[in-house]
Amino acid sequence: MNTDNGSDGSGYVRADPTQPQLGVLDLGATRGDGIFETIGVANRQPHALVPHLERFAKSAALLDLPKPNLPVWRAAVLAGIAAHSNEQGLAPELLVKMIMTRGIEGTNVPTGWVLVHEVGDFRAARTRGIRVISLDRGYRHDVSQTSPWLLQGAKTLSYAVNKAAMREAGRRGADDVIFISSDGFVLEGAASSVILRHGNTIRTPGTDLGILAGTTQAHVFEFFAARGFAAEYALIPAQELEKSDAAWLVSSVRQAAPVRVLDGREKNIDAELTGSLNDFLLARIQ
Amino acid sequence: MNTDNGSDGSGYVRADPTQPQLGVLDLGATRGDGIFETIGVANRQPHALVPHLERFAKSAALLDLPKPNLPVWRAAVLAGIAAHSNEQGLAPELLVKMIMTRGIEGTNVPTGWVLVHEVGDFRAARTRGIRVISLDRGYRHDVSQTSPWLLQGAKTLSYAVNKAAMREAGRRGADDVIFISSDGFVLEGAASSVILRHGNTIRTPGTDLGILAGTTQAHVFEFFAARGFAAEYALIPAQELEKSDAAWLVSSVRQAAPVRVLDGREKNIDAELTGSLNDFLLARIQ
Repeated sequence: MNTDNGSDGSGYVRADPTQPQLGVLDLGATRGDGIFETIGVANRQPHALVPHLERFAKSAALLDLPKPNLPVWRAAVLAGIAAHSNEQGLAPELLVKMIMTRGIEGTNVPTGWVLVHEVGDFRAARTRGIRVISLDRGYRHDVSQTSPWLLQGAKTLSYAVNKAAMREAGRRGADDVIFISSDGFVLEGAASSVILRHGNTIRTPGTDLGILAGTTQAHVFEFFAARGFAAEYALIPAQELEKSDAAWLVSSVRQAAPVRVLDGREKNIDAELTGSLNDFLLARIQ
Repeated sequence: MNTDNGSDGSGYVRADPTQPQLGVLDLGATRGDGIFETIGVANRQPHALVPHLERFAKSAALLDLPKPNLPVWRAAVLAGIAAHSNEQGLAPELLVKMIMTRGIEGTNVPTGWVLVHEVGDFRAARTRGIRVISLDRGYRHDVSQTSPWLLQGAKTLSYAVNKAAMREAGRRGADDVIFISSDGFVLEGAASSVILRHGNTIRTPGTDLGILAGTTQAHVFEFFAARGFAAEYALIPAQELEKSDAAWLVSSVRQAAPVRVLDGREKNIDAELTGSLNDFLLARIQ
């Protein structure tokens, strides 16, 4: 589904994703110059649609892209979900990608599209857990303040480093990555937020660290707060990963994946708490 | 011109760049997951074609992409130049982009294409010079050794930071950027190599700093060596930028642009030396 995102707000058209749709001069394809969001969908209900739309607009601003016409994007997302559900029958879980690039070089007209996929089976990751390695992200924890041109905190299409980190994890027999700043603080996963439990306290790195404001993480905090945990943003030294009583990587599509092995060491998984958390996340409306 | 880059080496086909050619599931467009080279062409002669092809293969290896079939890429580049010259008459300067992405998600078949453009007019940049600001690149100078998943030294499609740095330069009234490592060493331009002259010595940062091996920089060294200068790779503290007697940003298309203003301070331009250098670069065969 192509979204006409021009200033006239004229809406979107449906397009065939199996046919070529993009120009070879599109700056998304030639320079990774654009932004995206990935939205989870269960029972035809998109999760955290408004926060995703807001983060999309924030990423656009960080990249000096035109302000996305959010009502048009919202309508395209909902139309994509409806069309997929009608065509394919009721898929239990979908994901929706929103992508906006700087467009064909020289035109200053962004290119935008929304794409709906069926989601793979993440039940094993959600229950048995994942093996994670910590990897240096190369940046100090404060670069988003000192050096905004590094675009930390924007969800850009320039994702080659995240993909390379995931391949490195695979080479080391792991499923995922937790990035550590060059000065030793926990940042985020390759495509997820990090949640740590220390006793009755739940912690996640603050977004002043140049990491993405986790749309799922916000719901995770709600879940824990309702169960009497203290939930807080913190500057977390890397050593706290090992000391934590439990850790999860949370994201829009896989939801909460408990960390079963961290840098080669086994961690405890609280199966009941994790199960309740995933049920909560899959049932959320907003 | 699409290049079929599969293991069968079956060659390339000609395609219309004004029509959509890429799929919306192409990992180049959705994740900046791919590599590129930009080759300068003067008088129908591609410059440093072999070094560009070699660097392309090196970038592919750093990204765990399939090994590009270099004879096919070479043939596509030459065919693109010939076709453009025939159609458009003799353009004095062209640029050729080679792009290879990881392909449509899930297929493991890369997408590749070669594109030929006419070059803008860089005479003013080559003679009157450019205004440059130095910007933090956020990474230590040694991350390519410690953290290869950061892909420093690979020419990837994930170029959003380079583009953001250029916009920052524009906001500060400058034309270009010199990146400095987080620990204070000169790295490279946003799309160029840095050359400094101190008396009779020419210096450029070494490629062990996780920067691109400059295809033009190698020819610049030849030029200066033939004129009795010492030319060397070095670890260059950022303060040396200001102390240098002259500085250039050199690249495949703009060639040698002398730095006229660095971080707001005027620098001397040796017009005769710079003119000879650009004549040499535009006339090079290999």
